[in-house]
Order: sequence, then C-alpha cells, then structure tokens
Amino acid sequence: MLARLRASFDRQGMMTTLGVEVTEAEPGRVAMSLPYDRFTQHHGFLHAGAVASVLDTACGFAAYSVMPPEASVLTATYTINLLAPAAGERFAITGEVVRAGRTLVVCRGEAFADGDQRPFAVMQATMTAVFGKAGIQG
Amino acid sequence: MLARLRASFDRQGMMTTLGVEVTEAEPGRVAMSLPYDRFTQHHGFLHAGAVASVLDTACGFAAYSVMPPEASVLTATYTINLLAPAAGERFAITGEVVRAGRTLVVCRGEAFADGDQRPFAVMQATMTAVFGKAGIQG
Amino acid sequence: MLARLRASFDRQGMMTTLGVEVTEAEPGRVAMSLPYDRFTQHHGFLHAGAVASVLDTACGFAAYSVMPPEASVLTATYTINLLAPAAGERFAITGEVVRAGRTLVVCRGEAFADGDQRPFAVMQATMTAVFGKAGIQG
Amino acid sequence: MLARLRASFDRQGMMTTLGVEVTEAEPGRVAMSLPYDRFTQHHGFLHAGAVASVLDTACGFAAYSVMPPEASVLTATYTINLLAPAAGERFAITGEVVRAGRTLVVCRGEAFADGDQRPFAVMQATMTAVFGKAGIQG
Repeated sequence: MLARLRASFDRQGMMTTLGVEVTEAEPGRVAMSLPYDRFTQHHGFLHAGAVASVLDTACGFAAYSVMPPEASVLTATYTINLLAPAAGERFAITGEVVRAGRTLVVCRGEAFADGDQRPFAVMQATMTAVFGKAGIQG
Repeated sequence: MLARLRASFDRQGMMTTLGVEVTEAEPGRVAMSLPYDRFTQHHGFLHAGAVASVLDTACGFAAYSVMPPEASVLTATYTINLLAPAAGERFAITGEVVRAGRTLVVCRGEAFADGDQRPFAVMQATMTAVFGKAGIQG
Repeated sequence: MLARLRASFDRQGMMTTLGVEVTEAEPGRVAMSLPYDRFTQHHGFLHAGAVASVLDTACGFAAYSVMPPEASVLTATYTINLLAPAAGERFAITGEVVRAGRTLVVCRGEAFADGDQRPFAVMQATMTAVFGKAGIQG
Repeated sequence: MLARLRASFDRQGMMTTLGVEVTEAEPGRVAMSLPYDRFTQHHGFLHAGAVASVLDTACGFAAYSVMPPEASVLTATYTINLLAPAAGERFAITGEVVRAGRTLVVCRGEAFADGDQRPFAVMQATMTAVFGKAGIQG
C-alpha cells in the first residue's frame, strides 16, 4: 500500500514543486511534511493555497489507502478553515479517514507549524473513488 | 481601487509563480486568468490546489474591493467543489461578493476552462477584514 | 417530474412540521416558501437549523429533478453561510443545480427574507444519486 | 459557565421542540442527546436538518464556553458531512473548540447513533463572537 501511495505521490508535479515529503502512511492515515519556501501570500506567510493543496493531498491519500486496489481517488469537495497565519520553518500535515463508504470517503486534515500542538488549519474533505476509467491512476 | 488591488497582487509570490493575471476588477467582482502549466496532479490535469488558490485569491480581492481603505483581508474559510477535471489551455476564474458585513464578507467563486459555460469548480468563501495590524497589508 | 417532487415532498415530516410549500419547480431549479413560526433560536430569529433544512431540501429537490427516474437523492455534504439574521414574516428559498455528474450533483441555495434582494443565507451542496436500494425513495 | 449555557439553551425554542438535552459541558466541549422523533426525512430516518441543528447548537455552545462573559455567539458558517443515515433510537452529539481567536472560534462536531463508535455526521463550524449589541444574548 505504501509503495502504491509513493508511486502515485511521485507523479504529482505540484507536490514535488512544493517540496513535500510523506513522513507516515498507514491504512486510513497519512502524514506529510512541507518546508517554508517561496509560495508566500501577500503578508509573507506561506500561501493558504499551498497549505490547502497539501491538506487536500494528505486527505486524498488517506482515502486512497482504504479504497480497493483498482480504485482511483478524486477530491469532490473540501472545506478549509485557516485558523492562524502559517508561520514557521516546517509544517506537519495529516490526513485521516473519518468514515469510508463505497464511493465517498470523508476525511479530516490538520496542519501544524513547527512544534505547535494546535493546528493552524483544518480541513473536512469528501473524496470519491473512481472505478474503471482508463488512464486514471490514483 | 484597481491600483490598490494590483499593488497587493504583485506582492503575492504564489500568484506570480502560477502565472495568474487580473483581467477585470470592479467593486465586488474580480476576474483572473490562469494558464495551464506545470502544477499538475497525479492524473495530468491542473492540480486542484492551483485552482483553489486562484479562486481563493479572486474571492479575497473581491472582498477587499468593498472593504474600507485601511482594512486588510484574510481568508477565514472556504468550501470548494471540484465538478470536473481542470482540462484546458487557459482558465477564467471569477470572485464576487455575495454580502458584506463589517468584519465578514462572503464571496462566491467560479472557474471555467477555455470557452466552457459551465464551471468546473465553485467556491463559497468567508473573508475577514483585519484592522490596525502593523505590517499587514491587503 | 413536478408530481414526483410533490409526492416525495409530502413524505417529509419535517417540511410539513415547518410549514414549507413548494412555489416553483423546473428541471434544475426549485423554489420554496417558509413562514416565520416557532422554530426560533436564542435571539428570537428563525433558527439557522430551520433555514438550513429548507435550503438542503430545496437543493436536494433541484438535484433530484435532473436525476434519472430510478434514482433517489441523498445529501452528501453542504456548506451554509448565515449572512444576516433571518428576520421577516416569510422566507423564499431557492435551490439550483450548478453541475450534474452521474452520481454527484452540486447545487447552490439562497434564502431571502420578505422582499429583500440580498440573500441572508447561502448554501453550496453536494447531492448523491442512489440507485437500486430497496425501500429508498427520492 | 454551565448555568450561563443552560439559561441560553432554555431560550432556544427549536432545541426544546426537538427534545434535546445537554449531557456534558466543560470549557471548549459540549455533549447533547437527541431522541429519534417525528423530524423525519423522506426515507424515514431522522432529518439531516435536525442533525445539523443540534450539531450547530453543540458547536455554538462549545464556542460560547470559551468566549468572554459579555460576548454572544452567532454561527457564521458550517460544513456538514452526512456519512450514513441517522438510524437509531438516541443520538449523541458533541461540539468542541478546535481553536479560538478573538472574534472567530472554529469548532468540530460529531454525531453518533446509539452505541456506534463511528460518527454518522461530522461538522466543521465557524462561530463569531458578537459584542455590545443590545438585545442579543448568547
């Protein structure tokens, strides 16, 4: 499963561009690490878009980890709350499955700066399992 | 107002990196244009994170355009629905104010591929006006 | 289609309890009317829960109106923004389809008080088409 | 604080109508109990609107419990995911604070049927503290 996650992850141009690494992966839960880099917003913090992308990816991979091997995963919708500026040198981002149905998997994501115990961003995401579409890989 | 928007926009590292341009701006409504580029996800389409970032920025600027001059804008929360893959050469992204309160401004964003009349992504966003924080600019 | 909507509507205990009426219905769009009644919150306005229920129902019926006859509709997720207190005597609530896929239909809902042109609440909803489950009717 | 919560709760017509009870309350966390009753949707389960109302109220009270005594609480926005039908005799519904800012408090809600360990509904909510409005009480 981890190999399948990593193979999929390596195909993601945006994650490579952002410098994201997978730090943990188990069925239903994924953790990633993101360095502070050039994706800044107009106040100099990490751009919410970068935070959202990695939270979305972490939730997507958590969902993917509990889907059947022949399924691909797509994001249907998510809600993100930005609770504080993304201030720090390194960000830990987790995604975990809340409940998995046959085609919809609902996940929760959290983003932490450096050693802070309180998240600076949280996500509630709805992922879809896609079956039998040629050329689509998880 | 347009000058204030453009000055703020030019400070956004991520928008520059993504190649985004402001194509229209009036009080309560902003339109942007985004080329297909290297920010791909694992199926080869434009990454949802890039789409979300630009929708978020368009909604933020629409909110900013109806705020008092001394205010800055921050995203409190948004919900995005990804309705179809972001397939195309160029994407038009709009943000408009639904209703503005004193500190919260709710906006709606839509993303269109090439000449398609149906959006491939929609956003409902809640923006906050921030007053009197040194070093924070819209 | 309208008959199918009305038959489904009449089975909804909560809509009857709230005194809701369907005022318009066409493929992809439904309008409902809700009187101010006893479903108040702690400040004396109409409770957000009542507003959300009717918005959810309007979006669900809009989605249902574009689904195949054998499908049932379930709400997967929605986001509601409450923009102003629900102050008034009668509320007009609309639901319309933004884009329909095979199993997911995304809708937008708006709630208006009396003759106000600006909504006091907006919703972005994701509806699921359910096929072939005995005992489930739209 | 508990007395303040209960006084506010007792003013809520809708919660009384639904038969909801507060079962636990501590700073930043509230639990409520809801019986299966007449608020059914078109498939015979508890209506999502009733579930959403109680989740919203639980999140609102959790937020209120960490606000200054002079503040009132209003729901700005929430996202609810309905993960499974609300099937059961009694529902336990919790709201807890994820992170509290000066005017915005973000909360998470979960709804459980009977003794089930997996939630059948989850909420991510943004609550606003309102200060100095006459006639508004938490």
